[in-house]
Amino acid sequence: METRAAVCHAPDAALTIETVQLAPPGPGEVLIEICACGICHSDHHQRLREPPSGLYPIILGHEGAGVVRECGPGVESVRPGDHVIPLSIAECGVCANCRSGRTNICEAFLADMRDKRPRFFLNGEPVAVMSNNGAFAQHMVMPERQVAKIRDDVPLDIACAIGCAVATGVGAALHTARVREGSNVVIFGLGGVGVNVAQGARVAGASRIIGVDVNPDRGAAAAQFGVTDFVDARAHGDRLVDHLRALTGGGADYCFECVGDATLMNQAIEVSHIGWGMSVLLGVLDPSATLPVPLTSLQIGRTVTGSYMGNMRGRTQLPGLLDLYVDGRILLDPFITHRLPIGRINEGFDLMLSGQALRAAVTF
Amino acid sequence: METRAAVCHAPDAALTIETVQLAPPGPGEVLIEICACGICHSDHHQRLREPPSGLYPIILGHEGAGVVRECGPGVESVRPGDHVIPLSIAECGVCANCRSGRTNICEAFLADMRDKRPRFFLNGEPVAVMSNNGAFAQHMVMPERQVAKIRDDVPLDIACAIGCAVATGVGAALHTARVREGSNVVIFGLGGVGVNVAQGARVAGASRIIGVDVNPDRGAAAAQFGVTDFVDARAHGDRLVDHLRALTGGGADYCFECVGDATLMNQAIEVSHIGWGMSVLLGVLDPSATLPVPLTSLQIGRTVTGSYMGNMRGRTQLPGLLDLYVDGRILLDPFITHRLPIGRINEGFDLMLSGQALRAAVTF
Repeated sequence: METRAAVCHAPDAALTIETVQLAPPGPGEVLIEICACGICHSDHHQRLREPPSGLYPIILGHEGAGVVRECGPGVESVRPGDHVIPLSIAECGVCANCRSGRTNICEAFLADMRDKRPRFFLNGEPVAVMSNNGAFAQHMVMPERQVAKIRDDVPLDIACAIGCAVATGVGAALHTARVREGSNVVIFGLGGVGVNVAQGARVAGASRIIGVDVNPDRGAAAAQFGVTDFVDARAHGDRLVDHLRALTGGGADYCFECVGDATLMNQAIEVSHIGWGMSVLLGVLDPSATLPVPLTSLQIGRTVTGSYMGNMRGRTQLPGLLDLYVDGRILLDPFITHRLPIGRINEGFDLMLSGQALRAAVTF
Repeated sequence: METRAAVCHAPDAALTIETVQLAPPGPGEVLIEICACGICHSDHHQRLREPPSGLYPIILGHEGAGVVRECGPGVESVRPGDHVIPLSIAECGVCANCRSGRTNICEAFLADMRDKRPRFFLNGEPVAVMSNNGAFAQHMVMPERQVAKIRDDVPLDIACAIGCAVATGVGAALHTARVREGSNVVIFGLGGVGVNVAQGARVAGASRIIGVDVNPDRGAAAAQFGVTDFVDARAHGDRLVDHLRALTGGGADYCFECVGDATLMNQAIEVSHIGWGMSVLLGVLDPSATLPVPLTSLQIGRTVTGSYMGNMRGRTQLPGLLDLYVDGRILLDPFITHRLPIGRINEGFDLMLSGQALRAAVTF
């Protein structure tokens, strides 16, 4: 079939709306009509990549929500009409990792990462997708194991947020760090991921949630997501670590780096409490980058950890985020600050990059 | 008073036995007669340091055991005749860290680290000590908060081991990593710390304990401490990580680096299981060294952590290691492979550095 998609043809190029060809769903595959998709910094990072890690043409997008339109043979867990999230990480349910109950890094996902079989074509030539996803297309085909059925009483231009930013942030607090009730938390960067870490920490019962950003406008916006203290990083300069240690009475129980900056990552480690502080590194560096960690900082009892999609299993745990939303425990409405038709997707990128949008979503 | 001590006068110099002057115990202080002290790689590392981080003359030693001979005013928890371990980390019991129950990094210890007030003098000039300790002296004075009372039915030339190597290794498995029953463990380096990690993992119920070393003689020695599989690192070269992943069915639940080598630390991280693997870094690098950690390795769900003295609180938890010994759950006798009178301490260093001694202890 044919469908519309926003296609990126070259590093850092504007996206263009094109009619692309989509292979039909095979056995175990699902055809989804995407209704909305959030724009994430990771889309931008992918767009900046030069070959060979940047593949062109490419359909970005990995924070979509839509409706099942067709199921290939053997699909049992979803059917046409179901509201779904096309996941960036499969949950096959049968591999050792899925069965462990301890991680969302499905072994099928690891295999999928190596499987670059194209699903989209443009003038007969294959089109790549981001993260085995590519939700900036109006229709897409996904393996059943990579499709999460969600409740159908949440608008899809709200629900789309859980597929990446909300899972990454809320999940990092609840599933990676397992923030303890009454603890204090420092969040570096109050963008799409940072405010969701704050919401997760609030759900976990953290007593103090300190948000750090260089954009003072972010302070007011972050308060509704649970940030109790806003710290303008620029006002403290070299004394930022000391200031945050003092604010937390000696160090934070948990630090979250949500920017993707090696200096901030090390500041997070230094701010974390000697003896038990944990730093969760969520920001993205260049894939080949190494973080220089002062070993003595770790050896006095600190922990550093990473998290992919908040360590939330896509099919069994992710949909529960919408229950938290409907129950009023996390906010999604003020998170989606901008909605644009797909034809204006480049404006959406600009709104994100300028810091005006907490989250812009495109709709079909 | 006067006492005998092994003194190091210059970087990498042999130790010389000298008569030194010792200040008497003041309020809250305890005079201890040291009966035995293990020789640790950290003593050697300290000995190699150039000024300013290397202070000379210095009395090394931090793995001692002895008997209380005199108590200053106000000392309540020990009395003359008690068997004790002079700790390298105080446990004051009243600071926020001690009261947290979550760490052994006592705030008094952090203050002690900055307090370089001398206790020993040589010809009227101050003599430094290692780690606020200095147990290569026959007598020493320590604050009460830095003295652990131990049971008196274990010979002191056995008991001394718990003050550093045994706490560091067993504690790292039980208190830092909290190794889960049935898990698999990879230990890089089967020296004094590594074999104690193995014992700790065995106590925790690990089902497979893989030990890696470049010295094949270590394999047989390590078996009695719980190592189930010995891997000769040299036999695998560049394929060591792949080999260990295969041996562990995809990755280790826990890796412990016990050498102090940045390459091994990164191998440990790579061998740890995607999604939940934890690497505990116990080896010592240069104090200013940073470890370059590939961020993407962490972000697929791995954790890196450090540990100081196995995260065991010195006065309340450390003595329990001797209960484990008396109950037959950990071994100490085969750990102390060599005993030498203090006058032969330089031979003890040689036995350690050549790999012949798992642990050499000097006695007074």
